[in-house]
Amino acid sequence: MASSRTTDRTTIRTVAADAGVSVAAVSKVLRNAYGVSDELRARVETSIARLGYRPRAAARAMRGQTDTIGVLLADIRNPFFSDIMDGVHSALERTKYQSLVGISQSALSIELALVDAMTDRPMDGLILVAPRMVAADVTVTALRSPTVLIGHHEPQATLFDTVNDNDRLGAQLVVEHLVATGRSDIAFLSLEIDDPINALVTSQREIGYRAAMAENGLSAHVDIVRAGQSSRETQAAARRMLKSGERPEAIFCWTDFVALEVLSVARELGLSVPEDVAVVGYDNTSYCDLAQNDLTSVDQSGHTLGLQAARLLIERIKGRISPEHFVVTPRLVARGSSRPRT
Amino acid sequence: MASSRTTDRTTIRTVAADAGVSVAAVSKVLRNAYGVSDELRARVETSIARLGYRPRAAARAMRGQTDTIGVLLADIRNPFFSDIMDGVHSALERTKYQSLVGISQSALSIELALVDAMTDRPMDGLILVAPRMVAADVTVTALRSPTVLIGHHEPQATLFDTVNDNDRLGAQLVVEHLVATGRSDIAFLSLEIDDPINALVTSQREIGYRAAMAENGLSAHVDIVRAGQSSRETQAAARRMLKSGERPEAIFCWTDFVALEVLSVARELGLSVPEDVAVVGYDNTSYCDLAQNDLTSVDQSGHTLGLQAARLLIERIKGRISPEHFVVTPRLVARGSSRPRT
Repeated sequence: MASSRTTDRTTIRTVAADAGVSVAAVSKVLRNAYGVSDELRARVETSIARLGYRPRAAARAMRGQTDTIGVLLADIRNPFFSDIMDGVHSALERTKYQSLVGISQSALSIELALVDAMTDRPMDGLILVAPRMVAADVTVTALRSPTVLIGHHEPQATLFDTVNDNDRLGAQLVVEHLVATGRSDIAFLSLEIDDPINALVTSQREIGYRAAMAENGLSAHVDIVRAGQSSRETQAAARRMLKSGERPEAIFCWTDFVALEVLSVARELGLSVPEDVAVVGYDNTSYCDLAQNDLTSVDQSGHTLGLQAARLLIERIKGRISPEHFVVTPRLVARGSSRPRT
Repeated sequence: MASSRTTDRTTIRTVAADAGVSVAAVSKVLRNAYGVSDELRARVETSIARLGYRPRAAARAMRGQTDTIGVLLADIRNPFFSDIMDGVHSALERTKYQSLVGISQSALSIELALVDAMTDRPMDGLILVAPRMVAADVTVTALRSPTVLIGHHEPQATLFDTVNDNDRLGAQLVVEHLVATGRSDIAFLSLEIDDPINALVTSQREIGYRAAMAENGLSAHVDIVRAGQSSRETQAAARRMLKSGERPEAIFCWTDFVALEVLSVARELGLSVPEDVAVVGYDNTSYCDLAQNDLTSVDQSGHTLGLQAARLLIERIKGRISPEHFVVTPRLVARGSSRPRT
């Protein structure tokens, strides 16, 4: 034991020496203190990852195992999160681990409080699904507890794992499918959300959508519309798009849950889907198959995302410190809502 | 302090003396041991409730507060549970409490393991939503931790609170509405589940359905059909009902989630709703309002149930020991799926 490198023997001093900075500077990064430069943060994080350093609280948590992992969900109203949880449950089925879920209601303040509660209790590790917190807060969380993120694109991250759909490709598949079914004026109904580093799934889908439109030489009358999460905001945006003089030929929605609202608004306005307007969702949740929806969607296998995240988390809990970034390849599932017009 | 009655001064001996039984007998009830008679259990539970006794583990949990409450949900796929969680979140908003959710996937073994994990951690209290566990396990849970049950009818319970919809009345409202819209051959698509004491919402709705059919002098060709939770089982049951030579004029479904599947099967079979068959759900979830569903349903206000459960739980955590049994009065929300036939 005395000669082997263990995480317990790595201290804040070792990290400071490795990074060539002061102990106070490392401490500032760990506390996520105000005024830490991006460059300092990157240097310290690189050393932390290389040395496998964990601050004391997290080390204590790892020693006193609770056999519980925490899962942070933004919103259980979106049925896609059920698919993710099914995957998490499958992965944990034959292990000693159980999951407890915190629901943030898409509010950053609740999210941060829940993550604190989960790391303080402590839990053995965390799966954060599409968190709203900024990158620095993710770092601090990952330093306190083994952490895997789903739906957060940061492929260079060294302190935590990520599990993602290739969201750019997913959006490209939608545009190509709609072009192949004879539509060219294609709008994207996305989410109103702050995301300076393009880590979120909607930002990635916007990039994919724009790239595919450009590749096909298309420019939509209305390209990207962003609406808040609520049913009221979604329906208002859909109504504006569908009642406008230049109604798009197709509306690609960032998630099925939004597409179901668009189908409803179209019906209320007396429009026929897919004749008057095609509608496409994302996530391929169970609602797509219901005959009254018959909704074309992109399958990113929430089950696989959840399963893979739980597997990676258990590896991290058991000691892996090198980062893994797992990406699922999405596929388009065509249904009646985007059939070619007759 | 020395003269006041406190829960700390009540011991297993005090309980045994009060109940007129041995300490070993009380211990057996607390451990939920095999071979405890219903009569012995009732005597001990009455004394426990009267004296406000809490076993040591629960008392310890109450002293070392974690400011966390555990919520057990059967299944986040049913959108009704989102409404309940919204209510829980509303109640906790201005308190120091946070909730962590365990999802049992409708499996008893997972449910019991989660409840153990939640009481061992410990949490300050538990909300169990429609648990599958038998009454004796609920008792043991309530002895370990302040507990409130939603969707579990046991109005005589002394050790825990309950929050329920008047499910019998809800089912009666549906039958009366369907009769008023001209239907008499009304089937009830209920849930396949073991419930010897009629504590579950589906048992209560079956009782209400039967009573209302009898009151109206009606007997359906097919009265109660019970199906498993899965989409496959639900759709198979719906298909059998709708394809039978004696197709019911109306199908009342125990939850909206099932009614959406029935709408889908009807459409696939080329049947028109409400002309060929009326469909009614229960829970009045957000999906009912979508134009492609336009589903009549019973509103039991999941938000109110969750809110009230969290309020009662906080009272219990703060020391209340007398039981409260809160009942919501449901109301029917009529939509297109049960319009009178033209």
